[in-house]
Amino acid sequence: MITLTSDFGTPYPAAMKGVILRRTDARLVDVGHDFPRQDVRTAAFWLREVLPYFPPATHLVVVDPGVGTDRNALVLRAGDHALVGPDNGVLLPAARELADGAPLEAYAVDDADAASSTFHGRDVFAPAAAAVHDADLEDLASLERLSTVEEYVDLALPEAVIDDGEESVRATGEVLVVDDFGNVVTNVPGDALEGPDAVVANGERVPVGETFASVPPGERLATVGSHGYVELDVNRGRGDDAFGLEPGDSVVLEFDR
Amino acid sequence: MITLTSDFGTPYPAAMKGVILRRTDARLVDVGHDFPRQDVRTAAFWLREVLPYFPPATHLVVVDPGVGTDRNALVLRAGDHALVGPDNGVLLPAARELADGAPLEAYAVDDADAASSTFHGRDVFAPAAAAVHDADLEDLASLERLSTVEEYVDLALPEAVIDDGEESVRATGEVLVVDDFGNVVTNVPGDALEGPDAVVANGERVPVGETFASVPPGERLATVGSHGYVELDVNRGRGDDAFGLEPGDSVVLEFDR
Amino acid sequence: MITLTSDFGTPYPAAMKGVILRRTDARLVDVGHDFPRQDVRTAAFWLREVLPYFPPATHLVVVDPGVGTDRNALVLRAGDHALVGPDNGVLLPAARELADGAPLEAYAVDDADAASSTFHGRDVFAPAAAAVHDADLEDLASLERLSTVEEYVDLALPEAVIDDGEESVRATGEVLVVDDFGNVVTNVPGDALEGPDAVVANGERVPVGETFASVPPGERLATVGSHGYVELDVNRGRGDDAFGLEPGDSVVLEFDR
Repeated sequence: MITLTSDFGTPYPAAMKGVILRRTDARLVDVGHDFPRQDVRTAAFWLREVLPYFPPATHLVVVDPGVGTDRNALVLRAGDHALVGPDNGVLLPAARELADGAPLEAYAVDDADAASSTFHGRDVFAPAAAAVHDADLEDLASLERLSTVEEYVDLALPEAVIDDGEESVRATGEVLVVDDFGNVVTNVPGDALEGPDAVVANGERVPVGETFASVPPGERLATVGSHGYVELDVNRGRGDDAFGLEPGDSVVLEFDR
Repeated sequence: MITLTSDFGTPYPAAMKGVILRRTDARLVDVGHDFPRQDVRTAAFWLREVLPYFPPATHLVVVDPGVGTDRNALVLRAGDHALVGPDNGVLLPAARELADGAPLEAYAVDDADAASSTFHGRDVFAPAAAAVHDADLEDLASLERLSTVEEYVDLALPEAVIDDGEESVRATGEVLVVDDFGNVVTNVPGDALEGPDAVVANGERVPVGETFASVPPGERLATVGSHGYVELDVNRGRGDDAFGLEPGDSVVLEFDR
Repeated sequence: MITLTSDFGTPYPAAMKGVILRRTDARLVDVGHDFPRQDVRTAAFWLREVLPYFPPATHLVVVDPGVGTDRNALVLRAGDHALVGPDNGVLLPAARELADGAPLEAYAVDDADAASSTFHGRDVFAPAAAAVHDADLEDLASLERLSTVEEYVDLALPEAVIDDGEESVRATGEVLVVDDFGNVVTNVPGDALEGPDAVVANGERVPVGETFASVPPGERLATVGSHGYVELDVNRGRGDDAFGLEPGDSVVLEFDR
């Protein structure tokens, strides 16, 4: 199985699929191709959230603002999974999650013969993903175009700071992503929200609910999203609009014990 | 075969696919994931139009404004097909069509252990769809998490009223959906439009054509769409803009015999 | 393998897939369903760029402004590939590329029994694609609904004129498409851009770079895209906005030797 993730829209992903299907009959599953353009952090977040639900697979990821520069084309082995994509950190949060504590193995793909300088998804990463898929994960080093590398770009998603006082709790974090529903996903861990019926989010008091429907339609709430983080949402509406927040904005959550 | 339908956009459907593919190697086919958000009626309409073209399959549907409330997670057996989704009526029009007169069997999925309160697509419906797919349709009651239910939310699409007089015909209905082309699909059955060369739609006279190209590009027409209903369209343009109509708006069609 | 291309958005492609999967268990691969509406030339361009990367397959294409008129439903055999779609030229540039010099064989599909006048994708082209997929490419003429045709609509993408003088080069062409990144793809062949460090594009001087990152983020450049044509782009931005260009606009590129 090969999953495919990119910021390509249409129809470049199909060219990658054609290249892969010339080489292997793997099952192909799209994670998505409309991720925000050249936004490495957002893609890294979603990959970390989604890929662990898959069975062992090869994950092809092309969010690659540095295409054509001398950044490596990277293959990571992470436990029973392999990831293929640019060496810009986009693979790392997911790879650590998939490896589940096991050390990562990293390889660079020889891209000297790439047919284009602007579409390595088709000309470098897709052929590499097909080759990795058909290879023995224990023996990736034997693949013709792969060579072991010791260093690669890391990327860690920012962590919130929790000030857990006797009388009040104050979490200082930021917006990681806004999902397609407009839900504002912060980096404040969900367990920080255990207890209160309401929280002050960036100075405004909002109820805490276990699910969207705990407030009337159109009303705001704070909840713990399916990824385990505090979200600022609107029941049947868009949290990003209601709270005036976008990715990277700072978020302060406060409540009294 | 499992079909997937949701209002999730990207990338939540991929998490559902991962969950399914950990459990079964069924073929997965997307019906679509960009249906209007939390719009149960529109999804119900499209499912009824599209699913009957499929061979026997399990149909996973998640348009679920009540996620996390005590609404049931529903499994319906409808003839050779099974449908899995929230108990809000979204499955019913399609289920009746697929059952083709056979009685529906209904089951509730035990969701007490759901890992999240906001993403039952991943945590409840996807595992249920995988289990239903791999089960014998005759024996769904034996599945561990399913229990028979007698009642479920029904949903019927509104029907137009046809006043078929000696001298004129008057159909009073409403807009069911607007498709991605901007074609305005009404609930007036197509056979109501047999005969006239033109019809008065909400007070404006428009030609009746068998196909878009029966009028010049940019011109309006009434036609019978591929689902058998009267549509108000524009050849190579958007009917919703030209007629000023959106889903739920009332539509009156009149013509003299 | 059957690839699917349309301008249908959601959910009409799913109806086509259902129809196909009732008839064959072919692998289905989407090229895309959000191509510009009823824009035959743009679809023809992308198909020519993408389909040659696929292994032998049946390619179903429905960009069909003339649906329901008397235009033929066309099947083309092109080497090891087959293409199925409306006889409006959309298949031709890709077919010639796939045939790689071999003569094309053309067939018309009998659509007299089509269930609708507005959705031949579902009622004519999808069944034809399934039948073609399961047939012997050498023997398409034996398929029940196919009959040989000698004539069909051709479509050739416009070619740029290169004035390759002793002191300067002047290429006069036009914008073929703008991709989802906003990259402006011209019809000026890439080898016309060999040599200079900068080029005057429609009167404005822009650097020539091998890849986007050869200029700072937000800066314009001319480069040779992955399809081999000169593109007018912005590193991490949209070339169409920066250059004020859209498909069909004329482009003049000049540089001194």
